[in-house]
Amino acid sequence: MNMDYRQSGVDIDAGNDVVRRIKGLAKATATRGVLSDLGSFGGLFHLGAANLTDPVLVASADGVGTKLRVAFMSGIHGTVGMDLVNHCVNDILVQGAQPLFFLDYLATGRLDPDVAVQIVEGLARACRENGCALLGGETAEMPGFYADGEYDVAGFIVGAVERAKVIDGHGIAAGDVLVGVPSSGLHTNGYSLARSIVFDRLKLSVDARVPELGTTVAEALLAPHRSYLPLVQPLLAAPRATIKGMAHITGGGITDNLPRVLPEGAEAVVHLAAWEVPRIFQWLQRSGSVPREDMLRTFNMGIGLILVVSPGDVDAVLAALRDAGEGRAVRIGEIAQGQPHVRYV
Amino acid sequence: MNMDYRQSGVDIDAGNDVVRRIKGLAKATATRGVLSDLGSFGGLFHLGAANLTDPVLVASADGVGTKLRVAFMSGIHGTVGMDLVNHCVNDILVQGAQPLFFLDYLATGRLDPDVAVQIVEGLARACRENGCALLGGETAEMPGFYADGEYDVAGFIVGAVERAKVIDGHGIAAGDVLVGVPSSGLHTNGYSLARSIVFDRLKLSVDARVPELGTTVAEALLAPHRSYLPLVQPLLAAPRATIKGMAHITGGGITDNLPRVLPEGAEAVVHLAAWEVPRIFQWLQRSGSVPREDMLRTFNMGIGLILVVSPGDVDAVLAALRDAGEGRAVRIGEIAQGQPHVRYV
Repeated sequence: MNMDYRQSGVDIDAGNDVVRRIKGLAKATATRGVLSDLGSFGGLFHLGAANLTDPVLVASADGVGTKLRVAFMSGIHGTVGMDLVNHCVNDILVQGAQPLFFLDYLATGRLDPDVAVQIVEGLARACRENGCALLGGETAEMPGFYADGEYDVAGFIVGAVERAKVIDGHGIAAGDVLVGVPSSGLHTNGYSLARSIVFDRLKLSVDARVPELGTTVAEALLAPHRSYLPLVQPLLAAPRATIKGMAHITGGGITDNLPRVLPEGAEAVVHLAAWEVPRIFQWLQRSGSVPREDMLRTFNMGIGLILVVSPGDVDAVLAALRDAGEGRAVRIGEIAQGQPHVRYV
Repeated sequence: MNMDYRQSGVDIDAGNDVVRRIKGLAKATATRGVLSDLGSFGGLFHLGAANLTDPVLVASADGVGTKLRVAFMSGIHGTVGMDLVNHCVNDILVQGAQPLFFLDYLATGRLDPDVAVQIVEGLARACRENGCALLGGETAEMPGFYADGEYDVAGFIVGAVERAKVIDGHGIAAGDVLVGVPSSGLHTNGYSLARSIVFDRLKLSVDARVPELGTTVAEALLAPHRSYLPLVQPLLAAPRATIKGMAHITGGGITDNLPRVLPEGAEAVVHLAAWEVPRIFQWLQRSGSVPREDMLRTFNMGIGLILVVSPGDVDAVLAALRDAGEGRAVRIGEIAQGQPHVRYV
């Protein structure tokens, strides 16, 4: 019997079909810098389009984690791409960078073209919303690596910032104020624990309605990771710099992420009573009897982004965030003398 | 019973341990442009270090495909990182770009720190060899997504080229010559078919010695994907441009990859007798009774890179490749009038 590639589990034609269908989606994300069509070996981006004098490129790679399993269970594949792009956008935003372009890696056992297109639709939508070009990607069919109907997806973003405007927290000092900006849910972190609680302990289905939340399990757990670019961009574009440091609250929670921007000698004091922890986190904590310390090191607890600003700039920063559409940002703590870690009070 | 994150299958401390161990590996790859330590939210690269007047960024995303399964079977995890980096380097090299930096995405079910470090050692080694900084990455532990001892790894590369020096094949015309540069084995493509033949049909173990090859199965199938940067760099740096187009022969073989650089009106005529197909491909073809057409659309067949050059430049290009250490590059065909596809003769 003759053997060929399709028979061994890889369908080049199906892959080419997906490539054709996503080309249109990617094209709709093109920005001024994009020089190439998808299908070249590499994607081309003309840096001159970014109008920077002394550009620093800021890059980040990320995945969606086991939030994907909720997508598999519910058959909803249109939001994970938004999660991925927005997560990546936030990861470079906290260093002051504007996104330039994004590439994805999508790996499946057997490629379902419709699912692949749904995922890329989500990626493309979020890219458009962030003014970021979907410059390329890789769709890998790996028989036996992923169960039927399952996949993994990773994202890679490159942005740029003027060298003199890189935000790295070096100027943070005792007395500075922590401004917390609300998250839109779990974002993309803590899903292994959340799924254990919801599906293993509570034995709920994705379609189950949760009275405490007023939504289904799927709606609550698939709420897309929000992008903070529209809120922070006006502050970055302002003539006077007001942001001394920013932390994107991802895996590890406030506990592990805020210290990443603290210089030696700076301790973060976070007032847990300063904001109301959203119901989804309260429900998970109660249902799983999760110790508070673990909650704080696993979930964002309702704060997806923390800005560190001088005391004199707090009102202006809160006003700018309000003008950009976010009126729920609040002062959640301050910097004290100490070692780079978070002390909860 | 209280639940926490570790109990749900994710070990933040093990992850932090891996991050600590790979920080040193990544640091050793730092080039002049690198501004940040690993551990920031994004990796920072100062583009001024590339000394370009009008830079175009060239980016690509890739995986290793099911070659990974051979790594799992043999317990050898040190080469897949080299495969990934070199594959990515070649994908942007064919458009004329020098690599600037690389990021990886490594996903596992349960993180084995030693395996993760082996993988990153391979990535870091190849990054150093290509003068490319390992700028960051994501290590994701996703319980239930990957079988024990298995993982997936994706790579993202960014390089740069002067806008005026982008190679895109637009000038390719009838009469131009195809120069084939040898591959170092299967590179990273065709592994689903190769594994079907070797493990399912021939029922060989990874340690089995193959008399036709003079190596074990693992040695033959894990031969690292070579980087063509050291060979092509002198040609790109030369005052006079001699390369009109380049194709990296990856998934889809010469059949699908060479047309990606052909403009309208240009057909590639490839002489199959022009080079000796390496024994590994002959052995796979014979053992699997694979039709020649499928071989050519699945494997690189011994040619990992094709340069398209003017007839008058062939000798100079072959001499430059020889000077750079590759004396086995050969003329494998030419461009004729026709539509962008490959005609084998």
